[in-house]
Amino acid sequence: MRPQITSTANPAVKALRRLQRRRERDRTGLFPVEGAREIGRALDGGVAVDRLYVRSGEGVPTDLVARAEAAGIEVVPLGAEAFAAAAYRDVPGGTIAVARRFATGLPDLAGADAPLVLVVEGVEKPGNLGAVLRTAAAAGAAAVVACDPATDPFNPNVVRASLGALFALPVALAPAAETRAWLDRHGIPWWASSMHGTRPLWEADLSGAAALVVGGEESGLDPSWLADPERVIVVPTPGPVASLNLAAVAAVLLFEAVRRRSYPAG
Amino acid sequence: MRPQITSTANPAVKALRRLQRRRERDRTGLFPVEGAREIGRALDGGVAVDRLYVRSGEGVPTDLVARAEAAGIEVVPLGAEAFAAAAYRDVPGGTIAVARRFATGLPDLAGADAPLVLVVEGVEKPGNLGAVLRTAAAAGAAAVVACDPATDPFNPNVVRASLGALFALPVALAPAAETRAWLDRHGIPWWASSMHGTRPLWEADLSGAAALVVGGEESGLDPSWLADPERVIVVPTPGPVASLNLAAVAAVLLFEAVRRRSYPAG
Repeated sequence: MRPQITSTANPAVKALRRLQRRRERDRTGLFPVEGAREIGRALDGGVAVDRLYVRSGEGVPTDLVARAEAAGIEVVPLGAEAFAAAAYRDVPGGTIAVARRFATGLPDLAGADAPLVLVVEGVEKPGNLGAVLRTAAAAGAAAVVACDPATDPFNPNVVRASLGALFALPVALAPAAETRAWLDRHGIPWWASSMHGTRPLWEADLSGAAALVVGGEESGLDPSWLADPERVIVVPTPGPVASLNLAAVAAVLLFEAVRRRSYPAG
Repeated sequence: MRPQITSTANPAVKALRRLQRRRERDRTGLFPVEGAREIGRALDGGVAVDRLYVRSGEGVPTDLVARAEAAGIEVVPLGAEAFAAAAYRDVPGGTIAVARRFATGLPDLAGADAPLVLVVEGVEKPGNLGAVLRTAAAAGAAAVVACDPATDPFNPNVVRASLGALFALPVALAPAAETRAWLDRHGIPWWASSMHGTRPLWEADLSGAAALVVGGEESGLDPSWLADPERVIVVPTPGPVASLNLAAVAAVLLFEAVRRRSYPAG
């Protein structure tokens, strides 16, 4: 370990705090990952980590420190005040890694067996994208594609809400038309969810390769997704409140696909 | 309408702001409802509304004001500064109602046809309870029961995240044992979701009356829900991230019940 940093004015502390801003992440190509579980998942996922900061005192996660040191990652202790100044939130366990952003192009799924893909458009908050990534990773999705060019998957709230699922599956940013061309190229049929659809999701064949396309609750999907009624599905809402949020729709669709894959005959 | 209030120090403005605190809601039996859609759903749901505050200037929701006046509800204009001081958040449309808390005992479901009930325990944030209420209302649930005595369904974040679904179905607070007795009395079979369960949710018969019991992701469910393995179900997670958040589990379970009710033969 390197000597402990105690001053909140230390350049390393200031640099960490600046990474909370998108402009700085774009400029440096770095992003912060807070929390031992999240950092562990980043290492599992092959994310390049430059440095690990640990809060001095009780509760240093020794397993993570040992793993980082074995990987040649510089480990730097921070005093409690310096840590609090550097962290985006109160981090249980007291760890922040500085990681390198990874490519977010559409992945090659050529080797994947019947891939399940989630496509989202109009995700309103980074936390919502994080929640959706977590659900998609749990469902075993082969990739998540966000069709919003302004999305920043390296936002600290994405990392936090995903519990590190951001590192567990390929996450791509691509415009809608490009995404459809990529799905076609991989022979992956897609279904677009709309509250104005008439075909219940249960009537779509989700037993093989499938992409599920879900839009923001205010904005919905770009009309280019909705041109073919055969591809438009709906999560029927028998109750008095007709609208579901994006994360709920994604969960229902993804686990209907899991069900269909679990019971091929059903 | 009454004369406009412009001072942020006006007692009515201060009283509104105080209602953001639970102690004040408990003391007065009142709670604030912000937003025209949410207030409309409160009126639809028969919630007693004492007063409607509207922000002066452009965009006054005239339909809502007319409806309130027809119902004998006092309508009070607030200047922009006074409104901002009174509101919990930036309210699109500029409306806040002061409503009377309603009873949150276990409802009588004797007349309900095959009721679908959601039981939650260990909901960590008011916003999560709101999101779950919204999903349950969309699925046509007959009631939602929260088994946490500390839960306050009148928290502004519950109202906001539920988009007013809080007013669209009965919401009850009750301890776990009392909830089970109530379910038994109504002849409603229940299933408890646990990530340690072995029986996939799809193998539970959710085609008739059913209660779905979901716990917080950290705390899980009280062991009293998990004693009978026949009643414990799991949302299988084939992917690398094994955990799902409470709202995602609730969405998957509720809409699996909707599916089973939609296809009685399947």
